[in-house]
Amino acid sequence: MHGLIESMRLELSNSILDEMADAAELSVKGRRLAFSTDSYVVKPLFFPGGDIGKLAVSGTVNDISMKGARPLFISLGIIIEEGLGFDILKKVARSVKKASRRSGVKVVTGDIKVVERGAADKLYINTSGIGIIEYRGRVGSRAKAGDSIIVNGSLAEHGMAILNARENFGFISGIKSDCRNLNFEVDKALRASGKISVMRDLTRGGLATALAEIARSSNLGIEIEERAVPVKPAVRRMCDILGFDPLYVANEGKFVVFVGKKDARKVKKALGRNARIIGKVVTCHKKEVRLITPLGSSRILPDLEYDQLPRIC
Amino acid sequence: MHGLIESMRLELSNSILDEMADAAELSVKGRRLAFSTDSYVVKPLFFPGGDIGKLAVSGTVNDISMKGARPLFISLGIIIEEGLGFDILKKVARSVKKASRRSGVKVVTGDIKVVERGAADKLYINTSGIGIIEYRGRVGSRAKAGDSIIVNGSLAEHGMAILNARENFGFISGIKSDCRNLNFEVDKALRASGKISVMRDLTRGGLATALAEIARSSNLGIEIEERAVPVKPAVRRMCDILGFDPLYVANEGKFVVFVGKKDARKVKKALGRNARIIGKVVTCHKKEVRLITPLGSSRILPDLEYDQLPRIC
Repeated sequence: MHGLIESMRLELSNSILDEMADAAELSVKGRRLAFSTDSYVVKPLFFPGGDIGKLAVSGTVNDISMKGARPLFISLGIIIEEGLGFDILKKVARSVKKASRRSGVKVVTGDIKVVERGAADKLYINTSGIGIIEYRGRVGSRAKAGDSIIVNGSLAEHGMAILNARENFGFISGIKSDCRNLNFEVDKALRASGKISVMRDLTRGGLATALAEIARSSNLGIEIEERAVPVKPAVRRMCDILGFDPLYVANEGKFVVFVGKKDARKVKKALGRNARIIGKVVTCHKKEVRLITPLGSSRILPDLEYDQLPRIC
Repeated sequence: MHGLIESMRLELSNSILDEMADAAELSVKGRRLAFSTDSYVVKPLFFPGGDIGKLAVSGTVNDISMKGARPLFISLGIIIEEGLGFDILKKVARSVKKASRRSGVKVVTGDIKVVERGAADKLYINTSGIGIIEYRGRVGSRAKAGDSIIVNGSLAEHGMAILNARENFGFISGIKSDCRNLNFEVDKALRASGKISVMRDLTRGGLATALAEIARSSNLGIEIEERAVPVKPAVRRMCDILGFDPLYVANEGKFVVFVGKKDARKVKKALGRNARIIGKVVTCHKKEVRLITPLGSSRILPDLEYDQLPRIC
């Protein structure tokens, strides 16, 4: 099935999109816009730290932010299974409202479709977003040799929170999703450095997958210090017990910034006390990400070949 | 259930959107844009005259066109049920491509989510679209007293084609959905008249529902000549047999134009040989739509209180 999904993506990408990008850059009569879409099918609808409504707003806000654009407007397409409780829809609507207010975007157009019982799993949401790229060239799409790599906080919380909520593991508690809008953090990073090589949010596939993509598209090597990568103890424990690598687990409020060494400390400071410089871009072992262990040995972090967890967003 | 859906819509509308509009008008640094979203859950996926891919592109193109905007960009969010045949996705992707090329829009961003078997009915699509409003004030949002009302062709074909395909009625054949992009027809209408009072595509709820909405929001009366409303014989027969009123059945390639009497013939001509002037706007029986029968009597066309057919788009 995993191979099939990949070929579907590829087919769509080849036949319709030049590049199945998280957000597209458009030019409309001299104004540069970012445009992005995502469907949210997360299960369960409500989880510690968020719900499908919060996720649907902040996920799309974040995709736009990663382009260096300021998110302005959101659309909301909802598919509901007949029989869904009105209280659930109300709760989700309130959450969409709160998340959009918090991130400073306006929900301007919407649509609800109802399908019969059994034709959807409770409720799905699509959001599309429009942002404006105010300063051209502040955020590039490729890493540069010598760049420092900064992450804005600890990893793997969203994926583990969803799994915990879905499977009702009794033995672990206190893990909350990091689901939140990143646009203001991105703003801070941009104000700290006029020139960011590339940014990426660490959703599906986590840190390792994002880095592997960047290494490949930039034709450069990446080195990460294992000891510098922040993971909270409870999250690490849950990953250990269940056999997940936190570097591959999805986040919904984390991103990496690639920036020239001279601006790295400024950007790290701008991103707050949880931010860490975790590695650098090198000219050797091109297209490869290497994790340097505390003992000084290194291992390659390959691309994630399949989704570790279905329906995490 | 119908009442519940309505209160859901209202709840969302109140809590998030000022007005659950088909398309929103936005201003981005002095550029006026139209932005619209719709989810498509049509059943079956393929039907005479179209499929979910064509529908998803042209439906959103049409919502934008009704604002007097030129559609430019489309996003594509697909939710797939695990196990869906690759050939089906391929066919839909090809159809999206063809429809977007035909309507002159570019699919610029996309997303696929796969849910487990039984968590969706084969395939759902959300499209959002961005258009540019090049000339302000060419299309208003209210009817004016004395306006002529023009429809661009015969009614009720989409709804009846879907029902026919879904239920496999053997006794009726040759009914094809009118599903198509309207942006170039809208362009022609706009070139024929510099000032259109209001336009509306005749989707869910058909002609009668669109007119009832316009009468109400314009605080004016509407009179329609029953004999002038075009419906093809096979479609009328199917409606008669199954007890549907063609005035309330959904279309996917039809719209009404409200325009001052002096421009009416020009607009009708611009819309081609299937267009008809079907009625006028009056200052009496405000907020009411009346159908004038061939005998000269009249009956009120009320708002459609519930969807006649589920999953027609």
